[in-house]
Amino acid sequence: MEKILQQIINSNKKYTLDGQVASYIPELRNANSEDLGICVIDMNNSMYSAGDCDKKFTIQSISKTIVLAMALMDNEWDYVFSKVGMEPSGDPFNSIMKLETNDTKKPCNPMINAGAIVTTSLIKGNTLQEKEDRMLAFFRKLAKNDTLQINESVYKSEKLTGDRNRAMGYLLKNDGYIEANVEETLDLYFKQCSIEVTVKDLARIGLLFSNYGIDIETGKRIISEEICRMVKTFMITCGMYDASGEFALKVGIPAKSGVGGGIMASVPRKIGIGVYGPALDKKGNSIGGLRVLKTLSKKLNLNIF
Amino acid sequence: MEKILQQIINSNKKYTLDGQVASYIPELRNANSEDLGICVIDMNNSMYSAGDCDKKFTIQSISKTIVLAMALMDNEWDYVFSKVGMEPSGDPFNSIMKLETNDTKKPCNPMINAGAIVTTSLIKGNTLQEKEDRMLAFFRKLAKNDTLQINESVYKSEKLTGDRNRAMGYLLKNDGYIEANVEETLDLYFKQCSIEVTVKDLARIGLLFSNYGIDIETGKRIISEEICRMVKTFMITCGMYDASGEFALKVGIPAKSGVGGGIMASVPRKIGIGVYGPALDKKGNSIGGLRVLKTLSKKLNLNIF
Amino acid sequence: MEKILQQIINSNKKYTLDGQVASYIPELRNANSEDLGICVIDMNNSMYSAGDCDKKFTIQSISKTIVLAMALMDNEWDYVFSKVGMEPSGDPFNSIMKLETNDTKKPCNPMINAGAIVTTSLIKGNTLQEKEDRMLAFFRKLAKNDTLQINESVYKSEKLTGDRNRAMGYLLKNDGYIEANVEETLDLYFKQCSIEVTVKDLARIGLLFSNYGIDIETGKRIISEEICRMVKTFMITCGMYDASGEFALKVGIPAKSGVGGGIMASVPRKIGIGVYGPALDKKGNSIGGLRVLKTLSKKLNLNIF
Amino acid sequence: MEKILQQIINSNKKYTLDGQVASYIPELRNANSEDLGICVIDMNNSMYSAGDCDKKFTIQSISKTIVLAMALMDNEWDYVFSKVGMEPSGDPFNSIMKLETNDTKKPCNPMINAGAIVTTSLIKGNTLQEKEDRMLAFFRKLAKNDTLQINESVYKSEKLTGDRNRAMGYLLKNDGYIEANVEETLDLYFKQCSIEVTVKDLARIGLLFSNYGIDIETGKRIISEEICRMVKTFMITCGMYDASGEFALKVGIPAKSGVGGGIMASVPRKIGIGVYGPALDKKGNSIGGLRVLKTLSKKLNLNIF
Repeated sequence: MEKILQQIINSNKKYTLDGQVASYIPELRNANSEDLGICVIDMNNSMYSAGDCDKKFTIQSISKTIVLAMALMDNEWDYVFSKVGMEPSGDPFNSIMKLETNDTKKPCNPMINAGAIVTTSLIKGNTLQEKEDRMLAFFRKLAKNDTLQINESVYKSEKLTGDRNRAMGYLLKNDGYIEANVEETLDLYFKQCSIEVTVKDLARIGLLFSNYGIDIETGKRIISEEICRMVKTFMITCGMYDASGEFALKVGIPAKSGVGGGIMASVPRKIGIGVYGPALDKKGNSIGGLRVLKTLSKKLNLNIF
Repeated sequence: MEKILQQIINSNKKYTLDGQVASYIPELRNANSEDLGICVIDMNNSMYSAGDCDKKFTIQSISKTIVLAMALMDNEWDYVFSKVGMEPSGDPFNSIMKLETNDTKKPCNPMINAGAIVTTSLIKGNTLQEKEDRMLAFFRKLAKNDTLQINESVYKSEKLTGDRNRAMGYLLKNDGYIEANVEETLDLYFKQCSIEVTVKDLARIGLLFSNYGIDIETGKRIISEEICRMVKTFMITCGMYDASGEFALKVGIPAKSGVGGGIMASVPRKIGIGVYGPALDKKGNSIGGLRVLKTLSKKLNLNIF
Repeated sequence: MEKILQQIINSNKKYTLDGQVASYIPELRNANSEDLGICVIDMNNSMYSAGDCDKKFTIQSISKTIVLAMALMDNEWDYVFSKVGMEPSGDPFNSIMKLETNDTKKPCNPMINAGAIVTTSLIKGNTLQEKEDRMLAFFRKLAKNDTLQINESVYKSEKLTGDRNRAMGYLLKNDGYIEANVEETLDLYFKQCSIEVTVKDLARIGLLFSNYGIDIETGKRIISEEICRMVKTFMITCGMYDASGEFALKVGIPAKSGVGGGIMASVPRKIGIGVYGPALDKKGNSIGGLRVLKTLSKKLNLNIF
Repeated sequence: MEKILQQIINSNKKYTLDGQVASYIPELRNANSEDLGICVIDMNNSMYSAGDCDKKFTIQSISKTIVLAMALMDNEWDYVFSKVGMEPSGDPFNSIMKLETNDTKKPCNPMINAGAIVTTSLIKGNTLQEKEDRMLAFFRKLAKNDTLQINESVYKSEKLTGDRNRAMGYLLKNDGYIEANVEETLDLYFKQCSIEVTVKDLARIGLLFSNYGIDIETGKRIISEEICRMVKTFMITCGMYDASGEFALKVGIPAKSGVGGGIMASVPRKIGIGVYGPALDKKGNSIGGLRVLKTLSKKLNLNIF
C-alpha cells in the first residue's frame, strides 16, 4: 500500500507546478508550493503514508466539517437547519449574493463561509474562551492528537484581513441567522481555521467519519452515525467549493478541502484519507491533491456511485 | 418485501394530501392527486410492487438522466462538458439567471432545464425524425418495454406553453452552447418529457444504472460503467431540483424526480426503484414519493453515505 | 453657430480613434470609424451642421424613444406601464437577469432591449404589415422626411443574429408582458432598429420633443406635451445605456444613443440635436459623440440641472 | 401662494392614511402618521408654508445629498468617483447584491446606502470628533440654522440596529472603497442621518441647490455651481429610492427623500421645497409628500423636462 501511495505521489507531483499557494495572508504565502503528501488509515487501523506527510499546515475550510458535527451535537438539528440550509449553491465559497437573492436569505449550506460562520455561532459555551476550549478539545479528540494548536500568526492575519467574512457575519446577524455576538463568532471562526494539522491528523478524522463515528481503536462512539452520514453527504455535495460537482463525478468520494492545501476524504466503511499540497487551482482546491485523490480512487476502486 | 412496500405505501399515503398536482398544462392537472405507487427490482431480477403501480404518467424531468447518458454515448465527453457544466446550482430547475451571472454562462448541470436542453441538442441523427426515433428506441431499450409512447396531448401542451424553455434555448444558442436548431431541439425536448411510463419502467431503468449498465437478464452491456456512475452522481447532487441537498441528507440515494409525479432511484449494486405520486411539494417533487423513499431507505438501510 | 459646431467637431475628432465601430453584424462593421458629424436645429427652425452630417446610419436604439411615444399614443398609459417599468436599471442594455430577480419580472424601462421589445409589441395594427407601415410612417412624420427607409441588409442581419433578443421575447411572453406574437414583435423590433437616418433627421426629431410635440414649422401638434416630457425623462434617466448617470452628470441634457453611432438630444425649449460618430466606447455610446455633446453643453450652457 | 399650499395639503392629507411610519427603530414609530407639512422658499427669499411645518423629524437619507456635496468639496472629484459610481441602480436603497455582481463591485451611486457610506468616509478631519463637528457645521450653514442637532436616541437606535449597513461597510472596506475606519465611518453615517430638521430647513437647503450654491440673502457662494448641478442630477436619477424613475416621470423635479418622512426638492432657478409626512409607501418615500409634490409641480409648472 505504501508503495502505491509513493507511486501516486511521484506521478502527480508535476501538477503542483500548475498551481499557486494561497496569498491573501503572508503566512500562507510561505508554504512550499511543490510539497505533496498523503496519509491513509484503513479499518484495521493500519496507517500508510507517502511524501510530505509530517508537514504542518492550517486546516482552514476543512474545519467546517468538524464544526458542523459539533453544532449538530450541541443543538437540536431542526434548530441548526433553521439557521443554515442543506443545498449546494454552485457559488464561490465567499459569495454573498445568495444571502440576498435567496427567498430566505439563509446561507445555502454549512460548507460555504456564510454557513460555517453560522455553525460556528452555534458552538455552546458560557464564554468565548470556553467555546474556544471546547472547540479545540473536540478537534484534538477527533484527530486523537493532543498537540493540535492554533497557529497564532495565521489567526491574527485572518482576523486582520477578514472584512469580507465580517460583512457576512453582520448580514447574517441582521437577518437573524446568527444570534451570538458577531465579533466573537468571527474570532472563533478565524481560530478554528488556523488550527495546524498534518495529513495524519486529517486521515484520522476522515476515518472516524468513514466508521460512522466509532473510534476504531477503542470501539467508543465519538459522534452519532447520523451526524457522520450528514457530514459525508455535505462533503459530496459541497465539499470542494464550486468544483464539488466535478470532484464527485471524477473521484466520487466525500472530501473537504481547505486553502491551506489540505484535503480530508472519508470513504464509507473503507478508509480515511489526508492529503496535502499547498499549490491551489483557481477554485481554491489543492491542485496536486485533486490528482492524487483521483488516481487513488481509480486504483482502489473507491468511487461510491 | 411486497408486504414492506405495501406498509410503506399505506403509512405515507396521507402525505399526498399536502401536495398539489402540476397545473401548468391541463393534462397534468387531470392526475389523481392521491395516487401513490412503488416498484422495486433487485439484483436477482425480482420485482416487487405496491399501490398504483400500473398507472401511466409522463416521465418529465426523469428523462434528463437518460438523455444525459445518450449524449455521453453519442459524443466525446469533453465536448459534452464544454457545453454543460458539472456543478449543482442551488437554483430552481427553470432558472435563467445563472446563464447570465456565471462567468461562462454555461448551464450549471444537465439536470436543470437549460442543461437538459443542451444534452438534448447533442443527440445524434440526420433528421429530427431520426433523432426522435433513436431517442424513443433508447428509452424503450432501457425500460425493456417496446410499448413506451409519447403522450401526444401532453407533448402538444408542453410545446404550446414552453416559452420559458424557448427563451433558454435561444439564450443558449446565442452563447454558443447549442449548435443545433433551437426549435427542433425544443421539439425533441418536449417529446422526451412526454414519454409515458409506469413505476415498473422506472425501476427497470434505475436497476440498469444500479448494475453499472449491464442488463440483469441478458448480462449484456447497454451503457458503460463510467456513464452509469456519472448519471448516479448527478442524481445525488442535482436530481431533486433545489431540494437535492436535503434529499441526499435525509434519504441518501441517487434519485431523479419529474413533475409528472414520478421518481426514479438507483441504489448502487442493490436495487432499482420507481415511485409515483402526482401530488407535488412546492419544489416540484412528489410529496408522497419523497416520504416513501425516506421510509424505504431507513428500512432497507440504503443510504450510501 | 456653424463655426462653433465646426470647432467642436475639429477639437473632438481625435477621440474617435479611441473607439470601435459595432461589430456584431457585418453591415455595422463597414462604417468609417473616424466619421463625426453634428446637426442642431433651434426654436427659430434654423438648422446648423458640421462634419459628416449627410452620412446615413441605422437609428438602432434611438428608435426606442419614438416607439415609446407611439406605444403611449396607441394605448392607455396605465396599460403601457403595466407591461414595462419606469426605473433606470444600471444594467447593460441587453441584460436578462433583472427579468428574473425583479419582484415583478417586468422589464425595468423602455430604453433597455427587453422594455423596447414590449413597447414594440404595443404598436397597433391588424397585420404585421400594417404595424410596420404605421411605424415607418410615424418615424417619417417626426423626421419630416418621407425618404426614410429600412436598411434591408442590416435588418436581415439583426434578425439572423438576434437570438438574445429572441430569448428575451419568449421570456417576456412567458411572463405575460408581451401579448402579441413573439416572432412578429421581434421582426418589427429589428425593422425599427434598421431605419436609416442622418444627423439632420435626429435633430428634427429631437426638436419636436424639445418643443413639447408641436411642429415648429406648421404649429401643429404631433405628440402630446406629456408624452414628450416622458420621453425626455427616460432619455435622462436611461438614454445612454449604463452610462446614463454619468452623461446626466457631465452633460445634463436628455439624449438617446444607438450602436449605429447616432445620438439624438433634446434640450427643452431650446434645441434639437443629432450627432453621428460610429466609433463606440465599451458601453456602446458614440465616443466622439459624447465628447461633442459635452463640449456643446458647456459652450451653450445647455445643462438642465 | 400660502393659500395654494394650504389647498394642496388639505387635498392630499387623505393619502397619509395609505402609508405607514418607519418602524425599524422605536423612535421613528412614534411619529404621527397623519402629519403633513410643506415649506417653499422662492428666489426673492419669500418663505411660504402650510400644514405641519414646524414639526421636527430626522433628516435620514436626505443627508446623502449634503454629504455628497461635502465629499466633493473635501476631495478631488476623480478620487470621489473612483470610490462611488454615477449610475442609478434600480435596486432598493439597502441592496448589497450589486456590490458583488457589478464588474467593479463599486457602489452604484451616492444616494444608496452603500454609496453614502463611502461619501461619509471621505469627509475630512483629523479625528472622528472633528469630522462630526465639520459635518454638523456644514448642515447648519446650508440650513442657515445654528440650532440643528443630532437626535441622540435616534442615533443610538440606528447604531444598535445597523448591522446591514455594517455589513456593507465591511464589504466596501474589503473591496477598497473605504479607506477610513469602518466603525468610525458608520458612526458618522448614523449621526448624519439623525440630524433633526423641519421642512423650513429642507426648503432652505433645497433653495441653495436651486440657486447654484449662492446664498440668496448674502449673495455669498457656499457651494460651487458644478457641485450643485451634480447633486440635483443625482436627485433626479436616484433621489427617491427605487421609485426615482417614476417620480422623475410624474413630478419631474430633483428631490431626495428620507425614511423620517421628509423630502427636499430643488427646482433650478425657481424654488426650494421641504415636505414632511412620516407615513411612507412601500419603497420608503413619504406617501403624502409624493402627492403634495406632484400637485405642486402641476400647479406651478415645475417639471424640468
